[in-house]
Amino acid sequence: MRYPMSDLSPLLIPRGFRFGATKAGIKASGRADFSMIVADVPANAAAAFTSNRVTAAPLIVDKEHLRTTGGKVRVVAINAGNANCAAGQAGIDAARATCAAAGSLFHCRAEEVFPSSTGVIGVPLPADKLIVAMPQVALGAESDRFLEAATAILTTDTVEKTAFARIVLDSAEGEEPREVRIAAFGKGAGMIHPQLVPHATMLVYILTDAQILAADLDTYLRGAIERSFNRISVDGDTSTNDTVLLLASGASGVQIGAGDQAFEAALNQVCISLAKQIVADGEGISHVVELRINGAASHAEALRVAKAIAHSPLVKTAWAGCDPNWGRLVAAIGYSGAEIDPAQIDIRFGNLPICVNGGRAPEYDEAAAHEYIKQPEFSISIDLHQGAGSCVFWTTDLTTEYVHINADYST
Amino acid sequence: MRYPMSDLSPLLIPRGFRFGATKAGIKASGRADFSMIVADVPANAAAAFTSNRVTAAPLIVDKEHLRTTGGKVRVVAINAGNANCAAGQAGIDAARATCAAAGSLFHCRAEEVFPSSTGVIGVPLPADKLIVAMPQVALGAESDRFLEAATAILTTDTVEKTAFARIVLDSAEGEEPREVRIAAFGKGAGMIHPQLVPHATMLVYILTDAQILAADLDTYLRGAIERSFNRISVDGDTSTNDTVLLLASGASGVQIGAGDQAFEAALNQVCISLAKQIVADGEGISHVVELRINGAASHAEALRVAKAIAHSPLVKTAWAGCDPNWGRLVAAIGYSGAEIDPAQIDIRFGNLPICVNGGRAPEYDEAAAHEYIKQPEFSISIDLHQGAGSCVFWTTDLTTEYVHINADYST
Repeated sequence: MRYPMSDLSPLLIPRGFRFGATKAGIKASGRADFSMIVADVPANAAAAFTSNRVTAAPLIVDKEHLRTTGGKVRVVAINAGNANCAAGQAGIDAARATCAAAGSLFHCRAEEVFPSSTGVIGVPLPADKLIVAMPQVALGAESDRFLEAATAILTTDTVEKTAFARIVLDSAEGEEPREVRIAAFGKGAGMIHPQLVPHATMLVYILTDAQILAADLDTYLRGAIERSFNRISVDGDTSTNDTVLLLASGASGVQIGAGDQAFEAALNQVCISLAKQIVADGEGISHVVELRINGAASHAEALRVAKAIAHSPLVKTAWAGCDPNWGRLVAAIGYSGAEIDPAQIDIRFGNLPICVNGGRAPEYDEAAAHEYIKQPEFSISIDLHQGAGSCVFWTTDLTTEYVHINADYST
Repeated sequence: MRYPMSDLSPLLIPRGFRFGATKAGIKASGRADFSMIVADVPANAAAAFTSNRVTAAPLIVDKEHLRTTGGKVRVVAINAGNANCAAGQAGIDAARATCAAAGSLFHCRAEEVFPSSTGVIGVPLPADKLIVAMPQVALGAESDRFLEAATAILTTDTVEKTAFARIVLDSAEGEEPREVRIAAFGKGAGMIHPQLVPHATMLVYILTDAQILAADLDTYLRGAIERSFNRISVDGDTSTNDTVLLLASGASGVQIGAGDQAFEAALNQVCISLAKQIVADGEGISHVVELRINGAASHAEALRVAKAIAHSPLVKTAWAGCDPNWGRLVAAIGYSGAEIDPAQIDIRFGNLPICVNGGRAPEYDEAAAHEYIKQPEFSISIDLHQGAGSCVFWTTDLTTEYVHINADYST
């Protein structure tokens, strides 16, 4: 669920964390570009990173740190405007220098610092600017501070992306009601096709005040990612910097063990909400499309079909033009590599029959189909009649505005 | 090599074939849309078709016919404006009816007719229009007729695509000089990422007057396709209709056996020329880009890297904006799935050093890089330092014009 910013209650913010942001002078725009999350005590952590074999320097450092600490994070330091990727040893050194400075400032080990970067690839990160900015960050546990942190990490995003959930636990009579809070913020608008391992220039930070062991946190995070961030694509470009971090402060005093369905459901909901917000703010997009693939030989095959459709420039440009052109969908299904029978493909736009048994549906009504996909959000269901494999996937159209945003070269 | 149309000599046209085209009323524009190639006697044939699991009706019929005849083709009947794909049994029936009519008109078996279609997917093909048009095609062996046939098959193409080669054989003193001619025409501008099996809405017809066994023709064709049509991409969408047909009339009286290097070189040259013409006429493109991948662990790995780059919307839009943004290239290399070491990636634009050991080259000159890729054709070389795998691949940028062409919906 998404709360309007004006309604954002401090009661939504997980206890045990402080937030803040400032201007470090990395973004060319001069806007705030450096966010911090500081846990009161080292938080249990689980994280997922991009499967891109070129990974940005902070990700290399993050993985080392999580291994060294066994999954403990005290400080998260996030800069926007520079991805600190493809910068060789200088990039690694910049990330380490940032961690050392944060460790010294917050009296923790450098290994308990989790650096993140997003922005242009191939330009050395000026760590000194972050180190100078760090003491200037006004930290607080209030929702305003949370929003500042959520806003400073944005790049081509047009709106901040946040999601919240609360789990109220049964309590015995007379006992004070107990609750667990989950809050998350993230960014991402282009280079969006996260393939996180355990599967994430999408950056996502999820915070909870539950008491959860790091190993259980990891299981919850993997499950949630498979249903959310690994099911979205804007342009099919998998970033070098994608990161999802889940921190549990334990400050609620509520213990969550393995397999807690309420926590799992709440976490999934937060992740799906953020994933859909990222798609909805995709660069230049005019339509959000939900793909529901059913009847594939396996879930993996369903995903292949969804991705072939989500990455087809011809399908995406047709959507931009509100053109029902279902032949392009059939072609993409055909080259997806999934096991299919062309004569058994059924396609519906919402509830409108479009394609039956691989051919134009007898009831096909082009005008109605056109009207349906003029909506800013629409759903396409495909049944392959091969098995029980299925998936839900969220993607976008491809507009001239996307090309402008990404072709705009300022010299 | 490409000959200016005004210079097109009749001596370039392989003997043993007649050509022609007419208006069958399939194209909405009312232009000529039906081409024929008629061999004087059944020609030996080799063909390659799309690997898309959804294949158009004519391809299904073509495969049956080639199996039935053991590789003999007398008549090629090609319509543009309708792909005859995703039309179920009606589509197959339409293709068969066209073949039956051609067989009756040219006194050959229906199985010696090779139908082809290109255009919109999912609309039944009106075979009756083709059957009425067929006797109206003015056939001739002249270069003008060849060009008519080459022009009528175009869809979103802006120019016709032809290529020619001649092999002059040594002859004993006093003997008349003998020669083999190869001529080809093709079409394709969008939905271009041929993956032909033995690997091809690209349609290509290659004709020679050499005497070659069907089995040898097949070997020559596979080899040529791997170096040409399977090494190009405009938008990464693999069509349901891609077809490459190679016909040998034998009318030169020159026998070509297996492994003839001169014939192989000439055929490769014709196919590479046509493949590059297709890329250069890609929908809305403003740049043709040659990718030279070297040092991959294998040739297949080199191809994975080339395709990841060629299919990256972020890389392609950067090219459209003449933006050197090499970080996007590094990201695409990283997610290609190929075995790489990020610290060993070298990139050059032409001869300009861009990226060395995975980081910005010390001599990197952004202004020079920008000037270089402002050219309508440029070359990017990537060395991965992993092995001896290499490939050359031709692709395009992604412009707002591509989006306009493919999003333009006329209701």
